[in-house]
Amino acid sequence: MYFDDLPVGFQYESDEITLTEDEIIAFARQYDAQPFHTDAEAAEQSIYGGIIASGFHTMLVAFNLWLKAGIWNEASMGSPGMREVQWRRPVRPGDRLRIRAEVVGAAPSKSRPDRGRIEVRTDVLNQADELVMSYTATHILKRKHAA
Amino acid sequence: MYFDDLPVGFQYESDEITLTEDEIIAFARQYDAQPFHTDAEAAEQSIYGGIIASGFHTMLVAFNLWLKAGIWNEASMGSPGMREVQWRRPVRPGDRLRIRAEVVGAAPSKSRPDRGRIEVRTDVLNQADELVMSYTATHILKRKHAA
Repeated sequence: MYFDDLPVGFQYESDEITLTEDEIIAFARQYDAQPFHTDAEAAEQSIYGGIIASGFHTMLVAFNLWLKAGIWNEASMGSPGMREVQWRRPVRPGDRLRIRAEVVGAAPSKSRPDRGRIEVRTDVLNQADELVMSYTATHILKRKHAA
Repeated sequence: MYFDDLPVGFQYESDEITLTEDEIIAFARQYDAQPFHTDAEAAEQSIYGGIIASGFHTMLVAFNLWLKAGIWNEASMGSPGMREVQWRRPVRPGDRLRIRAEVVGAAPSKSRPDRGRIEVRTDVLNQADELVMSYTATHILKRKHAA
C-alpha cells in the first residue's frame, strides 16, 4: 500500500510471536548486555526477579511483526524518527507478543509530490492483553501516482 | 557511577566504531529487511543511492558505545523509555560512528529513596562530524547510599 492507502484511523493487529529465554539472552548478549537480560541468577536478584527481554529486542520484534504484515513495504522510503518510545511492563521468557498499530497522522509532502509521511502508533501487547511497550514512528511513503 | 554521580551537564564522548557493509546487511536481514538496507542493487535505485544502515542498527551501535563506557552499568535498573529518536543522515558502509552523550535531566524518585532517574541525550556523529542520529533516553539508577 502507498501513502494514499493509509489514512489516519487505519488499523492493523498482528498474530502472536513467542519470545524464548534463549532468544532473549542471545539478543541481549550482542546488543544490551545488562545482567537482568543475560544472567538468570543476577536477574533473580534484580528488581525484576528474573530474566527480562531488552527493550530494544521487544522493539525489533514489534517492528518485524509490522514489516512481515507487508503493509507499506513497497512504498517505504525510510524513517526520520520515532517518538514516545515507552517500555511499560517487563517482557519475560515465554511471553507471547502481538502488535496493534494505528495510523495517527498523515500528511503529503509540500515540497515533494511523490511522497508523504504517516505516523504509526504501535502498541505491543502480551498474552494477558497487557500493554508492554508503545511507540510512534514516522514513515516516508511513496504516493500511488508516483509508483 | 550511581544516580548521584551523574548530574545534569555530565558529558561523555566515545571512541569511533566502523560499520562494515557485511554488518549492515547481516543486521538488516534479521531485523529490518528493507531493500535499501539489504540489497546493494535495489539500494542503488532507491533515494539513498546505495546501502544504508537500519536506523535500529545505528541506535544499537550507539547504545553499545554507551554500555561499553561502563558509566552507569552497576547502577542500572532499566529504562521506561526514549523520546525524540531522530535519524538525520544516512549511515553508509565504512562510516565511523561515535557518540556524544549528555545528562539533560536528573530527579530522585519521590516514592522510592533507593533510586532516581536521569535523561541522557545521545548524539551519534560520523567521521565528518555530521549528526546522523540523536535520541534522549531515560534510565533508572540506584542511588549511592542504597548500593
